[in-house]
Amino acid sequence: MMTGAQYRESLGDGRAVHLEGRRVHDVTCEPAFSPAVQWLSEVYDQFYDPDPAAGGPYFVIPRTAAELRTLAERQRGWDISTIITSEALLMVLTAASRMRAEHPEYSERAMRYFEQSRRRDIRVAFAITDAKGDRSLAPKAQDDGDLYLRIVGKSDDGVTIRGAKLHVSNCAIVHDIVVMPTKRMKEGEEEWAFAGAVPVNAPGVTVIGTSHAPPPEDAERYPWSTRYAISEALVVFDDVFVPSERVFLDGQVDHSATWAHSLGVWERLGALAHIVDSADLLVGLAQLIAEANGLDRIPHIRQKIGDLVIYATLLRAGLGAAIDNAEFTAEGFATPSELFTNAAKYYAAAQFSTMVRNLHEIAGGAVITAPSLLDLRNPEIGSGIEKYLGTGIEGVSTQERLRLFHAIRDLTADAYGGWRSITLLLGGGGLHAQRMVAAKHYDFAHAKQLARDAAGITASPTY
Amino acid sequence: MMTGAQYRESLGDGRAVHLEGRRVHDVTCEPAFSPAVQWLSEVYDQFYDPDPAAGGPYFVIPRTAAELRTLAERQRGWDISTIITSEALLMVLTAASRMRAEHPEYSERAMRYFEQSRRRDIRVAFAITDAKGDRSLAPKAQDDGDLYLRIVGKSDDGVTIRGAKLHVSNCAIVHDIVVMPTKRMKEGEEEWAFAGAVPVNAPGVTVIGTSHAPPPEDAERYPWSTRYAISEALVVFDDVFVPSERVFLDGQVDHSATWAHSLGVWERLGALAHIVDSADLLVGLAQLIAEANGLDRIPHIRQKIGDLVIYATLLRAGLGAAIDNAEFTAEGFATPSELFTNAAKYYAAAQFSTMVRNLHEIAGGAVITAPSLLDLRNPEIGSGIEKYLGTGIEGVSTQERLRLFHAIRDLTADAYGGWRSITLLLGGGGLHAQRMVAAKHYDFAHAKQLARDAAGITASPTY
Amino acid sequence: MMTGAQYRESLGDGRAVHLEGRRVHDVTCEPAFSPAVQWLSEVYDQFYDPDPAAGGPYFVIPRTAAELRTLAERQRGWDISTIITSEALLMVLTAASRMRAEHPEYSERAMRYFEQSRRRDIRVAFAITDAKGDRSLAPKAQDDGDLYLRIVGKSDDGVTIRGAKLHVSNCAIVHDIVVMPTKRMKEGEEEWAFAGAVPVNAPGVTVIGTSHAPPPEDAERYPWSTRYAISEALVVFDDVFVPSERVFLDGQVDHSATWAHSLGVWERLGALAHIVDSADLLVGLAQLIAEANGLDRIPHIRQKIGDLVIYATLLRAGLGAAIDNAEFTAEGFATPSELFTNAAKYYAAAQFSTMVRNLHEIAGGAVITAPSLLDLRNPEIGSGIEKYLGTGIEGVSTQERLRLFHAIRDLTADAYGGWRSITLLLGGGGLHAQRMVAAKHYDFAHAKQLARDAAGITASPTY
Amino acid sequence: MMTGAQYRESLGDGRAVHLEGRRVHDVTCEPAFSPAVQWLSEVYDQFYDPDPAAGGPYFVIPRTAAELRTLAERQRGWDISTIITSEALLMVLTAASRMRAEHPEYSERAMRYFEQSRRRDIRVAFAITDAKGDRSLAPKAQDDGDLYLRIVGKSDDGVTIRGAKLHVSNCAIVHDIVVMPTKRMKEGEEEWAFAGAVPVNAPGVTVIGTSHAPPPEDAERYPWSTRYAISEALVVFDDVFVPSERVFLDGQVDHSATWAHSLGVWERLGALAHIVDSADLLVGLAQLIAEANGLDRIPHIRQKIGDLVIYATLLRAGLGAAIDNAEFTAEGFATPSELFTNAAKYYAAAQFSTMVRNLHEIAGGAVITAPSLLDLRNPEIGSGIEKYLGTGIEGVSTQERLRLFHAIRDLTADAYGGWRSITLLLGGGGLHAQRMVAAKHYDFAHAKQLARDAAGITASPTY
Repeated sequence: MMTGAQYRESLGDGRAVHLEGRRVHDVTCEPAFSPAVQWLSEVYDQFYDPDPAAGGPYFVIPRTAAELRTLAERQRGWDISTIITSEALLMVLTAASRMRAEHPEYSERAMRYFEQSRRRDIRVAFAITDAKGDRSLAPKAQDDGDLYLRIVGKSDDGVTIRGAKLHVSNCAIVHDIVVMPTKRMKEGEEEWAFAGAVPVNAPGVTVIGTSHAPPPEDAERYPWSTRYAISEALVVFDDVFVPSERVFLDGQVDHSATWAHSLGVWERLGALAHIVDSADLLVGLAQLIAEANGLDRIPHIRQKIGDLVIYATLLRAGLGAAIDNAEFTAEGFATPSELFTNAAKYYAAAQFSTMVRNLHEIAGGAVITAPSLLDLRNPEIGSGIEKYLGTGIEGVSTQERLRLFHAIRDLTADAYGGWRSITLLLGGGGLHAQRMVAAKHYDFAHAKQLARDAAGITASPTY
Repeated sequence: MMTGAQYRESLGDGRAVHLEGRRVHDVTCEPAFSPAVQWLSEVYDQFYDPDPAAGGPYFVIPRTAAELRTLAERQRGWDISTIITSEALLMVLTAASRMRAEHPEYSERAMRYFEQSRRRDIRVAFAITDAKGDRSLAPKAQDDGDLYLRIVGKSDDGVTIRGAKLHVSNCAIVHDIVVMPTKRMKEGEEEWAFAGAVPVNAPGVTVIGTSHAPPPEDAERYPWSTRYAISEALVVFDDVFVPSERVFLDGQVDHSATWAHSLGVWERLGALAHIVDSADLLVGLAQLIAEANGLDRIPHIRQKIGDLVIYATLLRAGLGAAIDNAEFTAEGFATPSELFTNAAKYYAAAQFSTMVRNLHEIAGGAVITAPSLLDLRNPEIGSGIEKYLGTGIEGVSTQERLRLFHAIRDLTADAYGGWRSITLLLGGGGLHAQRMVAAKHYDFAHAKQLARDAAGITASPTY
Repeated sequence: MMTGAQYRESLGDGRAVHLEGRRVHDVTCEPAFSPAVQWLSEVYDQFYDPDPAAGGPYFVIPRTAAELRTLAERQRGWDISTIITSEALLMVLTAASRMRAEHPEYSERAMRYFEQSRRRDIRVAFAITDAKGDRSLAPKAQDDGDLYLRIVGKSDDGVTIRGAKLHVSNCAIVHDIVVMPTKRMKEGEEEWAFAGAVPVNAPGVTVIGTSHAPPPEDAERYPWSTRYAISEALVVFDDVFVPSERVFLDGQVDHSATWAHSLGVWERLGALAHIVDSADLLVGLAQLIAEANGLDRIPHIRQKIGDLVIYATLLRAGLGAAIDNAEFTAEGFATPSELFTNAAKYYAAAQFSTMVRNLHEIAGGAVITAPSLLDLRNPEIGSGIEKYLGTGIEGVSTQERLRLFHAIRDLTADAYGGWRSITLLLGGGGLHAQRMVAAKHYDFAHAKQLARDAAGITASPTY
Repeated sequence: MMTGAQYRESLGDGRAVHLEGRRVHDVTCEPAFSPAVQWLSEVYDQFYDPDPAAGGPYFVIPRTAAELRTLAERQRGWDISTIITSEALLMVLTAASRMRAEHPEYSERAMRYFEQSRRRDIRVAFAITDAKGDRSLAPKAQDDGDLYLRIVGKSDDGVTIRGAKLHVSNCAIVHDIVVMPTKRMKEGEEEWAFAGAVPVNAPGVTVIGTSHAPPPEDAERYPWSTRYAISEALVVFDDVFVPSERVFLDGQVDHSATWAHSLGVWERLGALAHIVDSADLLVGLAQLIAEANGLDRIPHIRQKIGDLVIYATLLRAGLGAAIDNAEFTAEGFATPSELFTNAAKYYAAAQFSTMVRNLHEIAGGAVITAPSLLDLRNPEIGSGIEKYLGTGIEGVSTQERLRLFHAIRDLTADAYGGWRSITLLLGGGGLHAQRMVAAKHYDFAHAKQLARDAAGITASPTY
């Protein structure tokens, strides 16, 4: 296993990272990346065990609903890349398991990759979304076949890939990129059916980062995002060689959708567990700021807090049901229920913007107009702020009230808030996709039988 | 235990039932009541056991989450009054248990009433909602103190009550009325703090019924309501004597709210379990009619079905969480989680009207304009209907398609549908009440701690 | 012009009307039809003018926005069939006007039909929706080509049609049926491109009615629907001959959509004007019942009334904009703006079910459980009802409070309410259609230019 | 009148402006303020007329609905402070007009202030929201009476005020602050009933600014906010003397609400006119990015664009109705309809977050992950971005597509977007306030009469 310091050192591996038009030579010093490096370093230190046989608890395969619940609970203490690493490796194992009957070699490679990753204690990023070009056209019909990442060469010991992937979260600060198809491929699209693991510093890999991180020194104005902001990236794969051992799909178009489904299940569990916390956080911010404003007994404020409570509670119920109704692969890996995961994730994403609206209405305009704590400490004007932004409410200091306004702004009405809202909405595929997946897993036969009974249709069902 | 025939006979007990301006002398023959009598008779026959020690499974006290789940599952096979009987007696036991420390006599009476009811195999109705008069005024401030039911006399062996209760479901066809306060009473309102059990045929009880039952012979046009319509009633208690043994609250204003809360929990569990089935039924009707119309592949139709699926699935998750997070009384009775029950019930009620709108948009105008099956069988015009309302879709007969339209209308766009929609919305207290109760049981301390951490507020929490 | 009595007499013309499996020989005596006959008779009497040159104000062609506003205002005093007659004839004129350049003969016939209808003072019904069979298939691909009404024969003096139309409102009690295509037809579908006017009593026409009318004598329990219920019908056209003079489209597939669009505009204006009144009625019922319950100062009740007010007000704004932004045909006929009409109609239909939910929550469960006025007048129980359903609120009698509950039930939670809700939702095409039509008429060029400016895209727009 | 250069110069008047803990000595050079200074300078230059009698078109009093429409239309070309100046002065005139009968002196002062402001061509800021302290307490009950701004001294020639105002938009770069009560004051609260005009550089005024402005040089990444970001401020009034001529309310508690109402009407008109443009802009961005992604024919994308169209269209209808139904003061000033203004503003604010959600779902994750244009121009990686973020769609360059993503992020998912969303939600009082004001102006008498007719209540209305 690695310590935080060893992890930081491991990033000096020659990787080609760009940001805002320039090459970044040391990602650990770059403000856009440093909060995430710091966060992940702390997680490394937290789990470090010098025993050479030791492995992080993020390299664990749940085999019962109870183990799945433990995993979901544990994820709450991890940074994003550690969660992604857990999800990505479980996804690789799940997909390979589903392909096992026909392609046992992938299953073996997947298990070896899992073991090696555990031993090396690395972190990985997902690379899923292709460039796609004109999205109304199939890969083959694009002006440029590379607009979907594809295999452009094969040799005895591996394949060569070319293309680009969008929305690769935290790519600049992890070790490997787990690449997979963005969608179901059809017959004739074999070259686009690729999955595999690629080191971030592999020749031909270019990471073009974007960031919503705030100025790193401004922890008072950005109390959340100075700790938790991450970067996104467009990753270009320019004829990158992938050795066979790291190839998990190579032309089996009938299995390209297996990957998307395996991904969906694991990615959405993490998202759902995370959003339950996020929803509780919204309730907490709403209640604290209502109290700090002296408004917590006003009927329409209480109703809005009640709406937030309903939201958080239904999401917690959804997470519980996704785990209680776990499904199992042939190998016995426990995976969250697709039906409940997608239904709850849909509800979370569909209602999030309205819940943020509720929080803003409860908190008031000071979310965007509250002075900074620097102003509060300024001898010329601090006393005025203390006088006028204090409330006289027992136990609520002016400083804490200001901190609440800044936290709400940082989380919901600033650069990080925008990233968060869009990630929550679109991560795992958007409302439309989640609704369709939920419907796919719903027990229509049962529902239709109820309907036939209600209508007095007694004939044997033929449709 | 009673057979269905014995039950029918038991209703000839001199009860004073009125309907549409006239006295009803035999409720078993009256179209407004007969579907419910028939339904309940069947349930009596189903559970009948001649063993004198036998008791229906509706007289069961759950003591674990598993037993609670079994109860919720079993309720799905019962008629409304059998469910209400189960809920009402559990409510009596739960409330008495919560009062036990201070008032052990009520707990003993409650248990005896439970045992007697089991032995007699009776069914009961809830009587909760008072007349209330001017709802902005407290009981004492009303023009007439009887507008909230109250104790008007006391003797060594019992009390005399006067007042009226609204919305007493199925009262005309059951044996006992479980009466309780509609809301928390305050000091000085002792006379309005009454709970007890009153026979429907007790002197002074008048049942003024209302009904949404269809013409009983028209099972094709009303496939659901001819089977499942029930009556409602305004029940007048005109100086009705209640012997001590049947009195469960007599002036303890500090415990009046105990009843409302105990009721809420049990009533909403039944409502929630029922609504999960109802939601699945909506999905089934939507899917079947979409198929029967040849529209099940149209994107906007699929999305609306997807919305229904999300709704049904979140409700199922909510029901599961309410049971998994069961709470326990001092005696060890398992009760559903108030938080999850109320949150899910709120969501169910808040979204129901939109879900019905979705169903209507999927089904189309024939919900209200489809000819009757009588027309289909009419030799003059039947062939025209067969020709034009057939679709040529494999396995969908014209007759079945018509039945689906009629079932949808009966369930969602006719007299029964109106009753159902309002019952679902308001049963157990309305959206506002459910939101407030959910908020009351939510873990704000946890949420506020998350918020303080996010805001960087490290001082010890004083608010 | 006709008097009400002459109108009643005119219905004895041998028309073939069926209902619930039997032939109806006199529609004026049939409870399912008689409320509508009565309502229309009153409108006939109201406008009757013995002057042989006189014509009803429903036969008026608006030529300015002000005239359009007058028409919308006047419609509020008419029965449904008089409104439909106005809309249908304007629709025929508008469609013919749009076809005029290529097919002047239809425009002349349309004008003559308009003049004759005015002279005869007849009423008409719309017949639009075809049987459609498997709705995923085009007319030609159906098992039976008649599933879309079509021309099956032609002669020098006219055409013969065969097929059926659904959802023909009030057909049984009017004189003519204006038949038109349900959708855009394509090349090769010439036989299905038909529009024309057919007398209800023409040989081969069979009207199969359905009704949501209440028992006619029960005006207290059904205060609205005993006055305003109408019937719907499936109309079968079994080789019906239509003389050329009454044919307005005969195979011009490129103009089939012209009819749908012309219809949409006129039908939705009427619907929108009507719904503004309906929305105000919802507000009025909500406010009156809140006052009658003593709840009109409760915050969450006031908010729900506020929601109803916003709804009614936005609809009124939408109606105003539809008229102010009137569009004009080549002949100078003023037609309501398609953009604003559709946007407002969409909003009305999308929100209606939620608004009814609000009303129900304001009114409470007595909407479905209030005793009848017959009970109130019954000497045995009347005083109990008077005592307990009275409120002591100044100026609110028990009788009036009961009437309000019954009116709310009749309008929103009973058979008529179901018809009304579905008609409002689906009349004019459903939410999906209205959204798409609105989008079609929106000024995207302007919006895109705003977006280009915002994004700093200065190059000449090429997309 | 002033030129842009003269305006810039006029800001060097010794004003006490603070930002992020430091004093700002020249607001024209400070990045947080400079975009707004630049924008306003351009508007000064645009309207500059050297004629000494000339006055800007923002100093115009509408007296007919047509003039009101012209004003709303003209506002679209102005910067925020010019709009606020127009609104604020109209507000002062309207409020003074409503007080005129009893207090003619205020009306005269108001007119003189209007004339002087016009002659000096100044710009003003609104200062409304008090510090408020514990919002559950009235001004008098606060720990510190200054938590609502109040008059602390009076002399023959003026009054002295103390307190603070929140959310003072653009205060740092305008000339005068129009101060007014935040709410209705009651008897005994005379000292808090103050309105008047105070120069920004008056002794005792301190402006503590906050900003959501982006780095000023980054116009590509922030195409909108580098042009349109403004600052907010907490303004402290530390015993500021206001000469009588500039005092418009001095203790008349019965008229304190007059100000809030007068404000509401004018502020919301500007907000509504602005939001109509904003809604069209959302549609434009959605449509352009859908086309640029090749997704504009996908059903669920088209539906979401349709939802945006409905939103924009209903808002335009609401704005039209607010103007068409203009109300008139005693002096004949035309003011927008309170009913329609509030209803439309409510709808705009209530739905905005959902509309942004729709835009995000249409645009996809590249809103937050698209590389910068600097990256596109970087020779090392630019060709990769060109290759992979191009689409091959006719007429859509990679550069333009990137600009669209950045514009969407800047407007809806970054610091400016947060400010915008909260301003739109809370400006003019929040959803709750707008709903209540709309209800206050609705014609309940008409609605109740409709309801009485529907219910068959014929007795003379007494409630």
